Amino acid sequence: MAGVKARIAALKAELAELEAQLPPPVSPLATAFPKLPEIAGVRFATAAAGVKYKGRTDVMLAELCEGTQMAGVFTRSTTRAAPVLRCEEALAAHVETPDKAGKFAILVNSGNANAFTGGRGFETVDALREAVASVLDCPAEKVFTSSTGVIGEPLKHGRIATALDGLKAALDPAASASAARAIMTTDTFPKGACASFDLGGVPVSIAGFAKGSGMIAPDMATMLVYIFTDAKISQAVLQHMLWLENASTFNCITVDGDTSTSDTLLLAATGQADMPVIDDFADPRAREFRAVLQGLMRDLAQQVARDGEGATKLIEVRVTGANSDGPAHRIAMSIANSPLVKTAVAGEDPNWGRVVMAVGKASERADRDRLTIKFGDILVAENGWVAPSYTEEAGAAYMKRDEIVISVDIGLDSGKATVWTCDLTHQYITINADYRS
Amino acid sequence: MAGVKARIAALKAELAELEAQLPPPVSPLATAFPKLPEIAGVRFATAAAGVKYKGRTDVMLAELCEGTQMAGVFTRSTTRAAPVLRCEEALAAHVETPDKAGKFAILVNSGNANAFTGGRGFETVDALREAVASVLDCPAEKVFTSSTGVIGEPLKHGRIATALDGLKAALDPAASASAARAIMTTDTFPKGACASFDLGGVPVSIAGFAKGSGMIAPDMATMLVYIFTDAKISQAVLQHMLWLENASTFNCITVDGDTSTSDTLLLAATGQADMPVIDDFADPRAREFRAVLQGLMRDLAQQVARDGEGATKLIEVRVTGANSDGPAHRIAMSIANSPLVKTAVAGEDPNWGRVVMAVGKASERADRDRLTIKFGDILVAENGWVAPSYTEEAGAAYMKRDEIVISVDIGLDSGKATVWTCDLTHQYITINADYRS
Repeated sequence: MAGVKARIAALKAELAELEAQLPPPVSPLATAFPKLPEIAGVRFATAAAGVKYKGRTDVMLAELCEGTQMAGVFTRSTTRAAPVLRCEEALAAHVETPDKAGKFAILVNSGNANAFTGGRGFETVDALREAVASVLDCPAEKVFTSSTGVIGEPLKHGRIATALDGLKAALDPAASASAARAIMTTDTFPKGACASFDLGGVPVSIAGFAKGSGMIAPDMATMLVYIFTDAKISQAVLQHMLWLENASTFNCITVDGDTSTSDTLLLAATGQADMPVIDDFADPRAREFRAVLQGLMRDLAQQVARDGEGATKLIEVRVTGANSDGPAHRIAMSIANSPLVKTAVAGEDPNWGRVVMAVGKASERADRDRLTIKFGDILVAENGWVAPSYTEEAGAAYMKRDEIVISVDIGLDSGKATVWTCDLTHQYITINADYRS
Repeated sequence: MAGVKARIAALKAELAELEAQLPPPVSPLATAFPKLPEIAGVRFATAAAGVKYKGRTDVMLAELCEGTQMAGVFTRSTTRAAPVLRCEEALAAHVETPDKAGKFAILVNSGNANAFTGGRGFETVDALREAVASVLDCPAEKVFTSSTGVIGEPLKHGRIATALDGLKAALDPAASASAARAIMTTDTFPKGACASFDLGGVPVSIAGFAKGSGMIAPDMATMLVYIFTDAKISQAVLQHMLWLENASTFNCITVDGDTSTSDTLLLAATGQADMPVIDDFADPRAREFRAVLQGLMRDLAQQVARDGEGATKLIEVRVTGANSDGPAHRIAMSIANSPLVKTAVAGEDPNWGRVVMAVGKASERADRDRLTIKFGDILVAENGWVAPSYTEEAGAAYMKRDEIVISVDIGLDSGKATVWTCDLTHQYITINADYRS
């Protein structure tokens, strides 16, 4: 037995050495980055400011033309970071006076989250906002910043400020792809989505990119999303649409149930399209815009789940028949966050018992004997027991797919929700436990 | 690169082969099973009935003498199993007529959970209760049963019924250690705790055992706990004590946040001690008994956390200074269930930022700048930032211990809670994902 143990130790050592030689793996669920359309009124630039590492592109600046309307949604964490708190203040000020003159700017750095950095965290954000305002000639209260990376360490904002002149000179409406890459931390692929469509007879575009679910100890998973459109929409309508669509897209993904202190989602409408403003939510064009925005946000959200740490399967959890939509969402999240469900999917095990368990622990109304569970189109369980037509072979074959749909009908009423997650694999543990920061 | 990948694949294959040769590992946090005292009025027997595997001890029968009072707490899962639902009914009937004549019996099987088995699940439980009642000459409504193991498959109760005559013949007040082993599934060690003490001048004893946190796909983690005392206590007082102490013991452990459909905790008081009955919760002896019971239940609960799947570290999370005890408990559970906190502990990484994150996501009142975080006695963070005295070296040295205490003071009021969990390791993934059922 001692010989076996010694051999195991030797094998593991060699394995670790060899694996370190491999390039960082790209998620097997990665999607190609689309060709984003230019959005009139938006320009991007990126730089390698050396926030944490030398030679890594780590700063993204976006400039938004005069007349832009901005909407935002932020993490509800009670320990959220200084940049998030300042973004909330900036958005509140903008809501008060949505037509105040001046350009907007968005500045994002990776490498340091400026989170849990005490009063100094605010001083850093304020200094950066002033610096951007001075370089771009815009009001400081219209500068939104996000930071992602290590927490508890002071952000060397001087390095970013030094890069601002160069960033201004490089501003380019076509630079969205490099902007999407600049905000990545341990993401394995850049995430983007876009749509160009006809809105009340006028051609408009939406383009957005996101980062998320990458992590490097001791960083926290942070989701940052920036979406731009040239449509002309009032702040109130824009904010309402963003809030509504966020509920069914980014608030419906989970990798490990852990909430970042820095999550930020911004939607900017430059109003450069030649169209009458949409300033009433009842405007039919608002519904059209929302439908496109929803598809785009869902696409980006699913890309984040596809890049979940260690992900090998994308899991869609559909809950129907709950008391109402709120309980449906909580039951869906209970399934999507269950380590036992996620490890079963990783092991390609059609373990429907764990789905029953996760429904049961959600603290929502459910009746064991009314549950219907499906894997894809395969009826697995109904009437409180396994379905007579179900075979383990069919379930096991289905679980070999890259994309798994778990449907649960609660059998009570019409509440429904869909959420997305990924499986829980050894690679998740490796990323988060095996390497010291 | 292709050569490196081929060599990695070969190493992994050899590794898997060698690891399969090793005996099932015992948790490095295992404790020795104590010598449990005999409890007057309680006898145990075990048998290998072949519920799932041949030759494995899988049934435990406990007989409790006439005059016993029984208290119980069960999973709140909305998809709980048939035996749990019948136990709840039995307890309700007992509460109605606590002095109804007759012995009690507890029958437990491993190998099959009789969960999500439709109407047939109830028929199985009823048949077993009738069979036990007939063999032991006790009322069927005083037979409590628990089942743990695979779900969704019919329990072959005939095999258990056939074993009952042999079980009756083997009943022995000294057989508690084998009883504790009979209810194990993939537990790596049996869990027991006991106390003998003086209650109002009368010597009494409490002895209990538990199973939990072991799992073998597609089983669900199930916690079963049985505690016995010879003290004379009314049902109402017994139930109240059990309910109170459960809140600070078994309801304060978590391995993965997944709730079983079969959790059952029973406390039986045989009343064989020569003492006046405790039938008033204000009786000073009730307080004394509760204090001992609490220690014993906490001990058993910690043993379950020590045997958490893949555990290499026992983690105690102490939250103080919350709004009240409820929020403190929810914040503590948010930390204890965080995959990022648990993987950091597994990696011996003093990653206090993840503790801040987990406080922030708990949806309870907290103020980032009032938080105080300690690892053991080491002050890590205060006033919204890392403590000036803290060094990574001190934190890293502390994390090398087997038992980690994470203390968080919220700084608002006097609410407090303590919970226990274990780390999240590769072994958890291996147990739950790598092997098909």
